[in-house]
Amino acid sequence: MEGDSSAHAHTAQVAAAIHPYVHYVHVRLKQKGASELLALTRSMVNRGVPLQQIAVNDRVDVAMLTSVGAIQLPANGLPVMDVKSILPEGTRCGVSVHSLEEAQAAEQAGADYVLYGHVYETHCKPGVTPQGLVQLERISRLLSIPVIAIGGIQPRHIHELYTAGASGIAVMSGIWEAESPVAAAMAYKRMADRVVHSL
Amino acid sequence: MEGDSSAHAHTAQVAAAIHPYVHYVHVRLKQKGASELLALTRSMVNRGVPLQQIAVNDRVDVAMLTSVGAIQLPANGLPVMDVKSILPEGTRCGVSVHSLEEAQAAEQAGADYVLYGHVYETHCKPGVTPQGLVQLERISRLLSIPVIAIGGIQPRHIHELYTAGASGIAVMSGIWEAESPVAAAMAYKRMADRVVHSL
Repeated sequence: MEGDSSAHAHTAQVAAAIHPYVHYVHVRLKQKGASELLALTRSMVNRGVPLQQIAVNDRVDVAMLTSVGAIQLPANGLPVMDVKSILPEGTRCGVSVHSLEEAQAAEQAGADYVLYGHVYETHCKPGVTPQGLVQLERISRLLSIPVIAIGGIQPRHIHELYTAGASGIAVMSGIWEAESPVAAAMAYKRMADRVVHSL
Repeated sequence: MEGDSSAHAHTAQVAAAIHPYVHYVHVRLKQKGASELLALTRSMVNRGVPLQQIAVNDRVDVAMLTSVGAIQLPANGLPVMDVKSILPEGTRCGVSVHSLEEAQAAEQAGADYVLYGHVYETHCKPGVTPQGLVQLERISRLLSIPVIAIGGIQPRHIHELYTAGASGIAVMSGIWEAESPVAAAMAYKRMADRVVHSL
């Protein structure tokens, strides 16, 4: 594919292969410039990831240029209200939050969902409920928009996450660093489907 | 001023004070999030820096939200053609370049000007023309869009820079780290005016 011979070709290919098993692919290249983020996003679209399943990180300009379905704003990103004023109506606007205060501020500002984490950041003592899970429960109870959990999530965590009120999960290393990202994505989906049916 | 009590209040105040002596104020907070870049830009506008004299760095979304007169794209920023497709017509689009090849690519892509540097980056032997100046001369000769010089520029350099073909200069520390940024800006302008009249 033209303009696709870069290091992003492989990433785009993996994204295309896993997209049937996830709701969104979050495109994030934190240390790179906007040109690479744009190139990777376009590469994903070219390889068949539906626009509606792509969430671009931080850069609203890249989201506009690619017409993706969602923007994921970091905690120090542009204000939701400003973002909504320039993005096409219907573009979902998520905000990354790390506390109840940030989560409530995001909801009040008009966020469509929040990404809360890192839930499993700290290695916790066996038998003790990790602090992230307690916070997740509190945030999910007090917000009316969906709360997506992120941070160190393995398929075995999904039951307790959904029980705590999470509406979904976001996974980075669990899929991208797996020997087979597709198999990993399928495993997460299988577990999530089972948990949702059991709740 | 509401929402202006941050660390940016002082920066915005200085920008407002020096704007009569410069053509553009380049707003750049490379290590910070987009929310701070937006806040600082708005703070400058609130304090009287004319929109047409503000160039926002990298973030096209921030430029759109503030309607500033120019965007300054870093070497790894969004492609000029894409940027022009979403910014209002008339918004000037500058590109930061570090070689003749990058400069020519920027011109071909539709850049309105290039920022070339760093001209005085290396401490050079006395009597030897610094490499930056040689490159600047070459780039200015081969491009038809304005070439703005940047990097370690002092008022005493302006004559040789303009002689080499620069259409203007961009100054960071020379103004922002000066005891009196306003006095420094005036000194640069005085020298530039003198040089332009003498050439």
